[in-house]
Amino acid sequence: MINKKKFIAVIGGSQPSAEEARLAEEVGRELAGRGAILVCGGLGGVMEAACKGASSQGGITIGILPGDSRQAANSCVQIPIVTGIGYARNIAVVKSAQAVIAIGGSYGTLSEIAHALQSEIPVIGLNTWSLSRNGQPDNSIIPVQDPTEAVDKALNLAVS
Amino acid sequence: MINKKKFIAVIGGSQPSAEEARLAEEVGRELAGRGAILVCGGLGGVMEAACKGASSQGGITIGILPGDSRQAANSCVQIPIVTGIGYARNIAVVKSAQAVIAIGGSYGTLSEIAHALQSEIPVIGLNTWSLSRNGQPDNSIIPVQDPTEAVDKALNLAVS
Amino acid sequence: MINKKKFIAVIGGSQPSAEEARLAEEVGRELAGRGAILVCGGLGGVMEAACKGASSQGGITIGILPGDSRQAANSCVQIPIVTGIGYARNIAVVKSAQAVIAIGGSYGTLSEIAHALQSEIPVIGLNTWSLSRNGQPDNSIIPVQDPTEAVDKALNLAVS
Amino acid sequence: MINKKKFIAVIGGSQPSAEEARLAEEVGRELAGRGAILVCGGLGGVMEAACKGASSQGGITIGILPGDSRQAANSCVQIPIVTGIGYARNIAVVKSAQAVIAIGGSYGTLSEIAHALQSEIPVIGLNTWSLSRNGQPDNSIIPVQDPTEAVDKALNLAVS
Repeated sequence: MINKKKFIAVIGGSQPSAEEARLAEEVGRELAGRGAILVCGGLGGVMEAACKGASSQGGITIGILPGDSRQAANSCVQIPIVTGIGYARNIAVVKSAQAVIAIGGSYGTLSEIAHALQSEIPVIGLNTWSLSRNGQPDNSIIPVQDPTEAVDKALNLAVS
Repeated sequence: MINKKKFIAVIGGSQPSAEEARLAEEVGRELAGRGAILVCGGLGGVMEAACKGASSQGGITIGILPGDSRQAANSCVQIPIVTGIGYARNIAVVKSAQAVIAIGGSYGTLSEIAHALQSEIPVIGLNTWSLSRNGQPDNSIIPVQDPTEAVDKALNLAVS
Repeated sequence: MINKKKFIAVIGGSQPSAEEARLAEEVGRELAGRGAILVCGGLGGVMEAACKGASSQGGITIGILPGDSRQAANSCVQIPIVTGIGYARNIAVVKSAQAVIAIGGSYGTLSEIAHALQSEIPVIGLNTWSLSRNGQPDNSIIPVQDPTEAVDKALNLAVS
Repeated sequence: MINKKKFIAVIGGSQPSAEEARLAEEVGRELAGRGAILVCGGLGGVMEAACKGASSQGGITIGILPGDSRQAANSCVQIPIVTGIGYARNIAVVKSAQAVIAIGGSYGTLSEIAHALQSEIPVIGLNTWSLSRNGQPDNSIIPVQDPTEAVDKALNLAVS
């Protein structure tokens, strides 16, 4: 059954560095290889690289789109969800996952990290944001060194 | 490829009559039998009956949920999308489909019909709302007599 | 205190007939003259005509916008709310009001009527949609003959 | 005209420290005293303290609520906007403002900061989050020392 599988979101920018794109593709490949379903924002950059990696292993990819057209999805999204709600779809991306892997990213990714942490969904970070609050470090984003460790942590933490 | 399949939404109330539930289950069964992917609001009533029918044929079922928890999905939803945006998820339900089949339903269903028509997504109706505007009938909802005709029409019209 | 005033939504199309625009302006004028606050979708057509009428009487006008820019508001909106959520803002328009006056309108207006009825917010109709469900008339939209009667009914019903 | 005034959002947690509440009230007082309109999330804590301060100076206060009821607004909200979209309303809070003042806050506030920065809306910070990306400080949040400086900066930067 699909709904017994783990749903893991991969978030990151639409204009990643070459290294970030490589990391995202590797994360997608590992997730699919280990039976997880990939959730993302459905567009380009990190989202597309992760979908490409997952698709190469026969994995299922879900793209939760901000706009009004399924045509906006990258070509490796198998299940396009068309929300029409703009950046508010960022919330649906993280809430639809049991753990989140953030790779690089700009303010949109930061908003997704914040919404995930607010919803108590674990966030694993690869070369991404770090936070401090009132001068004290906030260590809620779990740092990892490579895609394999990211996927290990995400699958271990995806329990609810 | 999943994304070459047709995505059809089934909408209707959470407290259907026995007849409406029977129609919804039959619609779900036909959709899955003919290779379509079922999109719905993920909760009970017509949504659950349609998912049950689709699942009985090995079909894929997507439930776009209003609340904050995947646990709210009916047991036949395979891909729960957790939006956290309340009834605004009605818009995502219809926009994620290429055609919509409405079965019975109350004001929530009527809102979905309206959002679909506004987005120029075909709506097929089984025992559901009919509309007139300024005293003139609006025939945008395509009436059908039974589940087979509903699925025929939906698949024919699901082109974009 | 502003928040003791009644909040009334005026909904209708962005391309009204001349008669609908006249009705909307008169409704706006009456609402403001009787101390109510006007809520609308903030754009052109019926929304703009109603805001123009209300402004002519010194009333307060709220425009709940679908897009990302306050610049999209019509020039008689005093309080632009910028949602960025597209047509999902239709829900906020009606939920922010204690009663709704619908004037003409197309499917967007129909979606607002449906969301209002689902939320048990009274809907008064001037030359707008009428509904039937499963062949039986649904009389939830309260028909009125003119702007004065519309405003009378809206203010009487705006109790919660 | 109200719509010539500046719209400034005050964001922060619902369970602030006593010092944060004092800062928020002072910010609200200064904003109203200088003719700005206060936008906030409409609930308790920093939101309520800011509304209280603004109201004490006769200012206008807008509360953009996550839920389905205007009754949830704090008693100093004059214009309750009822969105029904949950935390997605955070986006509307910042987009409806021309500048944002963040006071303390947890992950919800962080999401609002991120959405504001993504939309290129200036963010002024009082005892709030600080950010770094990939190990490099991101100085987009403008730090200030006290409420007067926060309001000065917000009004100066609120140009679009």
